[in-house]
Order: sequence, then C-alpha cells, then structure tokens
Amino acid sequence: MDNRPIGVFDSGQGGLSVVKHLIDSLKNQSIIYFGDTARVPYGTKSAATIEKYAKQDIAFLMNKNVKAIVVACGTVSSYLTPELFENLNVPFTGVLKPASLAAVKNSTTGTIGVIGTKATVKSKSYEKEILLHKKDAKVVSVACPMFVPLVENGYIQPDNKISLAVAKDYLLPFQKENIDVLILGCTHFPLLKGIIEQAVPNGIKLIDPGYETALFIEQLLKKNNLLPSADNKAVYEFNASDDVENFKEGADIFLGDKLKTLNASFNQVTF
Amino acid sequence: MDNRPIGVFDSGQGGLSVVKHLIDSLKNQSIIYFGDTARVPYGTKSAATIEKYAKQDIAFLMNKNVKAIVVACGTVSSYLTPELFENLNVPFTGVLKPASLAAVKNSTTGTIGVIGTKATVKSKSYEKEILLHKKDAKVVSVACPMFVPLVENGYIQPDNKISLAVAKDYLLPFQKENIDVLILGCTHFPLLKGIIEQAVPNGIKLIDPGYETALFIEQLLKKNNLLPSADNKAVYEFNASDDVENFKEGADIFLGDKLKTLNASFNQVTF
Repeated sequence: MDNRPIGVFDSGQGGLSVVKHLIDSLKNQSIIYFGDTARVPYGTKSAATIEKYAKQDIAFLMNKNVKAIVVACGTVSSYLTPELFENLNVPFTGVLKPASLAAVKNSTTGTIGVIGTKATVKSKSYEKEILLHKKDAKVVSVACPMFVPLVENGYIQPDNKISLAVAKDYLLPFQKENIDVLILGCTHFPLLKGIIEQAVPNGIKLIDPGYETALFIEQLLKKNNLLPSADNKAVYEFNASDDVENFKEGADIFLGDKLKTLNASFNQVTF
Repeated sequence: MDNRPIGVFDSGQGGLSVVKHLIDSLKNQSIIYFGDTARVPYGTKSAATIEKYAKQDIAFLMNKNVKAIVVACGTVSSYLTPELFENLNVPFTGVLKPASLAAVKNSTTGTIGVIGTKATVKSKSYEKEILLHKKDAKVVSVACPMFVPLVENGYIQPDNKISLAVAKDYLLPFQKENIDVLILGCTHFPLLKGIIEQAVPNGIKLIDPGYETALFIEQLLKKNNLLPSADNKAVYEFNASDDVENFKEGADIFLGDKLKTLNASFNQVTF
C-alpha cells in the first residue's frame, strides 16, 4: 500500500483524457498533473526540444514525491529514452506500450493503423513498439496534425462537417489497407472518435491509449505493491505553466463534468 | 546612413510575412530574424507569459546590435507595454499602429473589422489603437483561432473547401455590420486572403499589417536617418529556437521562392 500520488504530465491539457480514465479505474488514487501550457504543443517540435522539455516536466513531478509517473502525451511517449528515467527509482509508463499491446491483442489481420501528430509519426515509435510484440505485424501510420486544433477549438460533434472533411482526407489511406485496429495515438484524438469512425471502413476497432494506459498503470502499481489503501481519499493537484484560468476552461473538453466533483486544486508553476 | 541590420521577431514563422514585405520595400536593408519556434504559438497563451517571452526575444535582438526592432507578431504587438522597450534607445514598431492607421485612412463608414488570434481579440488592442486615431470609429473584432493551423497545414488554396467553411462560420458577424475595411490582425491571415474575400461582403478592403508595417518602418528609418546606404548588400540571418530544418520547411509558406535567392544564414539559438 502506498497513498502517495502518481504524477501525470503532458504538453498541455490533452493528458487529461488519460487522467479521466485513471479517475475511473483507480478511485482512491491521488494524482498530481502537470500541463506545460506555456510551451504547448510539443507535437510540432523537434526531438531535442521535446526531450529537453520532458526532462523538466519529470523533474517537477519527482520533486512532488510521486510514486509513479505516467507520460500522458503521445509525442513525449514517442521520444522517451531510457536516460530520461535513469535514477528515478519509480515505475513509469508512456501511452505507447499499453496502446501497442492492446492493438496487437485485438488485431486478427496483423495490419495495424496508427494516427498521431507529425512528431509521433516521424519517430516511428509505434511501429517499433508494435513489432516488439508482434514481429510480422504491418503498421500503417498517418499524421493528422489538424486534429489537435480541431479538438481544442471544439469541432468535436460527430456531425461537424469541417472535422469530417478533414478526417476523410487524412484517413483515406486506410480505405485501401486491410487494418482492423486503429490506434488513436494522440491524447486529443479520442475526442474525435465519432468522426473518425465515419471516415474509416466499418468494423475497425479504435484503440484509446488513455483507457489502455489507465489499465496498465493499475497493473503496474499492483505488481509493485503501490496501490492506495481502500480508505484513501483521493486528492487532485493540477499544475500548469501558463494561466490557471485558461487551463480550467480547456480542461472541460477532456474531463467534462468530472472536474466539478473532484477534490482538486490548481496552481501555476514557472520553470 | 546606417548599415546595421534591423531586428524582427515573432512567435514562429508567421513574422516572415512581414519580412517578405520588408525585403520588397527596403532592398538594401539587412535583417536579423528571430522566430520562437520552440514555444510557438503565443496567441493562445496568457498576457504574462507573452510578455515574458517578448522580453527575451527583444534582448536577443538587442545583443545582435540591431538599429531598430519590428515586432512582427500580432499577438505580441497587442501586449506591448512601454516597459518592454525602456532603455532600448532604438526605434521600434509593432504591426498594430501601421495597420490601424491604414484602416482609419481607408474607411469611409467608420466601422472597421478586425480578425486575430484569441489573445489579440481579448486584448482589445486594435480597438484602443484605432480609437486613438479616429475617436468615433466603431470596431468589430472576431477571433479566428483555426486560421493559424489551417495556414500552417497548407489549407490555403482559394478553393479549399475546409478553409472556406471555417471562414464563412467565423466571419458571419461581418455580414450584418457595415464594415468597409478588415484588418487581417495575425501574420498568418494574409495567406488566406483569397478565402477571406469569399467569406465577407463584396467591396471590403483587406488590410495586411505586414505590408503596412514595412512602409511604416521605412518612414521610421528615414526620419531617424537610419536608412542603409544605396550600395549596401543586404544579408539575412534567420534564428529559430527549435530545429533549423523545420524552420526552413515552414518558411516557404511565407517567403515562397524568395528564400532561395537571398544571401541568408540559419541558426538555432537556445535561451
């Protein structure tokens, strides 16, 4: 048993889609979140810059005495190097491994689709991870950079014509490939689930890395005897590097009504 | 006469649309550009964060011994405070004043439209500036945050259906208002000129702050006896806080073929 919080970070608010699933699956677990809203997004930036920012984000959470770290950002998860976590001595996971394991488990054709930011697709991280678990898999990756601003600007209703047109354009390659699972490889993309479903052939299973990561971290805590006690009252601390009021506004998109009922505090932090 | 470079900065590459006009109107003038591509965009961030970043950007250019500074970013121009330029001892301008003066000069109805990022519109900076020059003007401002990613992802062809749908949605308020000029209050927006024209009533004059700012800085240099000599060979130094190759790629959108013929160098700089 360990009632310390787990640390979760992302380039901005997208990681809250992972927090949403963590709240659902680990009700007694306290969470400290960091969103780097003063430098968001990471997904259009270079590997060196992403790594530099990720180091600072991890150091911030470690100073808060967290018992585990979740990298709730598709882009950072794609650029994780072992060095980033050296000497940390706490369990950690990105979204990449849990999502890839779920994709392999759910695929019968062995052809797996991945969509993400430019940086995620360029890194080929999903391809490498999937091949670790299924050597003969075929991975088809497509960058969908416009999906992020579409979500952040609220174009998420399943009948939104603009998002549907963008999605049909991006996802055209999947009409020809025999994929049966599609990894939504960016924390923003599950918000467009209703639109993405209309833009890919019927019957394709969509993998939400946030959902899979919440299940994965639960197993990781269990294995390391780090689950909180049954009577622990979870508290939530949300930290952002830019204005807190802006953060709260955008948080609604990802957490919905949940935010109102949580025992939560909000802080702005400066590096 | 003064052959030193002028300094131009922006949150990213958008300010290159100002540089394009500067190259055209001041052929012998050397330019040092800084694009904060590691922290782009500024337009969705808070006033305090924008001011902090702008201070660092200005300090970087001043260390390069520039003879004048152009804030080639609609958002930063909206948050300029006199303190930012205290003790600089060089002439400077944002895009706000040149664009506002041009709008007032070209408006006969006295009702002026402004479009910009969320931060620009929230600041009411254009409204305040226009009222300085025309006390009875009516200013109608609309935030168009999706225009930035649309440009950056290349959705700029005048027949692009997605951009046209977004533009028609954003610019609907101008169907009811009697505006006769519209300020394209973000460096990215002139790239969507062909689309914006289709989404507003006929006969509205579009003001390009980059074009107006190039004319304005020319007058400012002339007044301060800072124009370069007729035989000065202009050199161009482009600095970015993220990867230089990424910077070059995106620069094409704003500078087009110009980039190939310039005597230009590219550097990555870290704060």
